[in-house]
Amino acid sequence: MIVLGAGPTGENVAARAVRGGLSAAIAESELAGGECSYWACVPSKALLRPAAVADEAARVEGVTGTRLEPEAVLDRRDRFTKNWKDDGQAEWIRGVGVDFFRGVARITGVRSVKVGDAELHANHAVVVCTGTRAVVPPGLTAARPWTSREATSARSVPRRLAIVGGGVVGCEMAAAWQALGSQVTMLSHGRLLERVDEFAGDLVADGLRAAGADVRLGVSVTEAAREADGTVTLRLSGGTTVVADEVLAATGRAPRTDDIGLEAVGLTPGSWLDVDDTLRVRGVRGEGEEAGGWLYAAGDVNHRALLTHMGKYQGRICGDAIAARASGREPAVTDWADHACVPQVIFTMPEVASVGLSAARAEQAGYRVRVVDYDLGNVGGAALLADGYTGRARIVVDEDRRVLVGATLAGPGVGEMIHAATVAIAGEVPLERLWHAVPSFPTVSEVWLRLLETYGL
Amino acid sequence: MIVLGAGPTGENVAARAVRGGLSAAIAESELAGGECSYWACVPSKALLRPAAVADEAARVEGVTGTRLEPEAVLDRRDRFTKNWKDDGQAEWIRGVGVDFFRGVARITGVRSVKVGDAELHANHAVVVCTGTRAVVPPGLTAARPWTSREATSARSVPRRLAIVGGGVVGCEMAAAWQALGSQVTMLSHGRLLERVDEFAGDLVADGLRAAGADVRLGVSVTEAAREADGTVTLRLSGGTTVVADEVLAATGRAPRTDDIGLEAVGLTPGSWLDVDDTLRVRGVRGEGEEAGGWLYAAGDVNHRALLTHMGKYQGRICGDAIAARASGREPAVTDWADHACVPQVIFTMPEVASVGLSAARAEQAGYRVRVVDYDLGNVGGAALLADGYTGRARIVVDEDRRVLVGATLAGPGVGEMIHAATVAIAGEVPLERLWHAVPSFPTVSEVWLRLLETYGL
Repeated sequence: MIVLGAGPTGENVAARAVRGGLSAAIAESELAGGECSYWACVPSKALLRPAAVADEAARVEGVTGTRLEPEAVLDRRDRFTKNWKDDGQAEWIRGVGVDFFRGVARITGVRSVKVGDAELHANHAVVVCTGTRAVVPPGLTAARPWTSREATSARSVPRRLAIVGGGVVGCEMAAAWQALGSQVTMLSHGRLLERVDEFAGDLVADGLRAAGADVRLGVSVTEAAREADGTVTLRLSGGTTVVADEVLAATGRAPRTDDIGLEAVGLTPGSWLDVDDTLRVRGVRGEGEEAGGWLYAAGDVNHRALLTHMGKYQGRICGDAIAARASGREPAVTDWADHACVPQVIFTMPEVASVGLSAARAEQAGYRVRVVDYDLGNVGGAALLADGYTGRARIVVDEDRRVLVGATLAGPGVGEMIHAATVAIAGEVPLERLWHAVPSFPTVSEVWLRLLETYGL
Repeated sequence: MIVLGAGPTGENVAARAVRGGLSAAIAESELAGGECSYWACVPSKALLRPAAVADEAARVEGVTGTRLEPEAVLDRRDRFTKNWKDDGQAEWIRGVGVDFFRGVARITGVRSVKVGDAELHANHAVVVCTGTRAVVPPGLTAARPWTSREATSARSVPRRLAIVGGGVVGCEMAAAWQALGSQVTMLSHGRLLERVDEFAGDLVADGLRAAGADVRLGVSVTEAAREADGTVTLRLSGGTTVVADEVLAATGRAPRTDDIGLEAVGLTPGSWLDVDDTLRVRGVRGEGEEAGGWLYAAGDVNHRALLTHMGKYQGRICGDAIAARASGREPAVTDWADHACVPQVIFTMPEVASVGLSAARAEQAGYRVRVVDYDLGNVGGAALLADGYTGRARIVVDEDRRVLVGATLAGPGVGEMIHAATVAIAGEVPLERLWHAVPSFPTVSEVWLRLLETYGL
C-alpha cells in the first residue's frame, strides 16, 4: 500500500498496515512529520505553554517575578520543531518498516502513484493523507499576510500584529504573540470560536483583552495593503484603519488535493475527499463501493475533523481496514468517533475544551436535550488552583438515554479535564453510573459532581 | 435526623436529608466545615498550589524569575481557611435549612443525642460524621510534635523540619515546607506512599530530593526529645541523630468516637464504625439489621476511605437513604464506589493520582489481571507541558471483562487526568469502546492512546 503525505495521519496509516502484515511506502513533498509537527499544533503549543504557565503563576498569591523571555520561548519552539528538519521523523518511518519517498506524489491510475521518477504500484490500496493548506482571502493577498505557517515559525516578535479570523488559529496565535510582546489586534467577522459554545469564545475574548489585545468583533477587512515602509494597512468595515507590522490570515483551510492526480481516477482536483467509515473514498471512477475500492483518504483532507488526533484515529482505522481487506476480511473497527465524539482543546488563556455535540447540534440531531451549566469559579479546587478562577462547564444530556452527548469547558487548565467527558460519551455511561465516578477533592474536576447535582442527582 | 460533626460529610448528609423532606440538626464541637476545611485538604492545597505552579514554571524554557514569597503563601492559606473562623460555613448550614448546634454531642440512647444542655431526639436517624484525629506514637510525644493540624496551620516556616511517616500527609507536607524554605528531613519506615503503586512513591522521593529534602527510607525513630533550646532531637534506628526545629508526626489516624456516647448503644468507644452500603452502623444494641437501624456513620469514621470526596459521596448516599426509609422506601442508591473505585490525588511534586485497584489488590480480588505501563515522558503533550517531563502511567485491566479496574498516574499535572480513569472504571467501559475515546493532541491525556496501543489495540 502507498500513502501520500507523511504527517501524523499518514504515518499511522502506514505503521498500522505494516503491523497488519502489509508492505507500505509513504511519500512526502515537504517534511516528514507534516503540518502538525512544524507549522501547527507542536510549535503553537511550544509557544503557548510558556505563556500559559506564566499566566497561571501570575494568578496565584505568593508566586511572584515570573516573566517570559521571548527569545528563549522562540528557541524552545525551534527545539520542538527540530529546526524544521525531519531526519528523526524519516528515521522513525523507516524504523517501523515503511519505505520513505521524498517528492511530490501523484496518482496516475488504479493503485498507481508516481513520486518524482519512481513509479509505484500498490497491490491493495493508495491512501491520501495530504492534509490542508491555509486559505488567504483575495482581499488580503496584497498585504502579503502571514498564514499559520509564518505565525508558528516566525523568528522575531512583530511589534504590532493584526489577526484576521477568530477561529482556533486566530485565537491561539493572538494569545501567543500578545504574551510574547506583540500588540495584537484581533479582527473577527463574528464572535470568537464560533464552533464551540458561546461562553467559551466570550471568556477567550475577555482573556485576550485582559492581556492587552485589541479584540474587535463583527468587523471585516475591506482593503489591505503592504506599504513601502513594510507596514500593513487594513481598512475595516465601518471605515476605521488598523496599521500593523504583520497581519495573519487565519481564515480557513483548503484540502491539498489540487495536484495529486485526482483527475486520473475521476475525482475533482482541489476537492475534499468524501469517505465512508472505513476511510475509503467514494466516487472513484470504475469502482463500485461493493467492488471494494482501493483509494482511501484519512485526516484533514476528508474534512471529517481537522484535528491531528482525529487524523491519527482515522489513520489507525484506515491502516487496519486495508490490512483486513488484504486478508479477505471486513474491518472490525470503523470510524465512530467522528460522528459524535470529537474532542478539541484550544490552548488559549483560558483554555477551551469541548467534545461531542453542542446543545444546538444535539437538538438538530433529534435528541431530547437538557443543558446543564456550572460556574467553575464556584468549585473549591478551582479557587485553590487560581485566585479568582473564572470559567464555566457545560454538559449536554440526551434525556431519553440519560447519557452525555456533549461537554464544553472553559477555564485555566481545563485541557486535561475534557477526556473524562470523552470517555463518558464514548462509553455511553448513564448519569446514574457517573454519579459513582467520584471526583477527588480538591480538584477542578469536582465540577463533575456539581454538574450532576445541578442536573438533579 | 441528627448529625454529629459538621465536616463536609456531615454537611452533605444533613443537606440531602433536608432535600428529601426531613428536618435535620447538626452538632459541631469545633469548627463548622471540619478538618478538611481548616487543617487538611484546603490549607494543604493552599500551601501546595503556589509551590506546584512555581515548580511547573521552572520546568518550562523561556519562563524565568518565578519565586515563592513564603509570607504571602501563608497569607493565602489563611484566606482559604478563613483565619479558622467558621461563620460562613455555619451560615451555609443554616441556609440549607439545617439547625446548627455548637458543642460536644453525645449519643444518650436510641435516636437521642445531647449537645451541651440541649436534648435532641430524632424521629428517624442519628449519623456519626466525627471523622478522625492524628495518632502520635508514644515514642514521639516527648518531642511535642506537630500533627497534621500544626503542619497545615503553622504561621512561620521552621528552619529544619523533620517528618516522621511517608504517607500522604508526610509527603504533601514535606513538599510544601521544603518549597517554603524549610530544610526537610523525611523519615519513613518503608518506601513513600506505600498504598499506591511503587513507581509513584519513587517519583515523589526523587522529587523531594531534587527539591533539596533529605529523604531517608527504612528508618524508624527510637527516641525523641524536645531540648531546652526548643530544638527536637530524634535518634534513629542505626544510631544516627536528626536535629530539627519541629517534627511532624504523620503516622496515621484514629476515629473520633471515644467520647460520643457509643457505650450507650452497645458499641465500643474509640472504635471505627462498621457500616453497610447504606452507611448504617452494624451491631447497634437492640437493633437487628432487618428491623431497620437508626444509627448511621459516614466519612472517615467508618474507615471505608479516609478522603473528603468519599465522605461527601457517602454523605449523599446516607442522607438520601435516611430520607427514603423515612418514606417507607428502601434506598435506590447504595455505596458502590468505596468497593472498587476510590480515587485519590496527592498534591506532591510530581502529583500522584490513583483510582480503583492496584495490580496486587486486583489479583487478590480474583481478577485475571493485565498491567500496562507507559512512560509519560514519551507523550508529546507531556514534553510540551514541561521540558524533560518525567512521569509514568499504569492501567490495570480485568482481562475477562476487558475493562479497567485500576489506574495510577504520577507526574506534573496528572491530578486532573485521573477522572477519565474513574469514569472508565465506574462506567465499566470496554477497552474496545475506550479506543474510540480519542484524547486530544497535544495533551498529556494522549497517554490513554499509548496505553491502549501498548495493550495491543
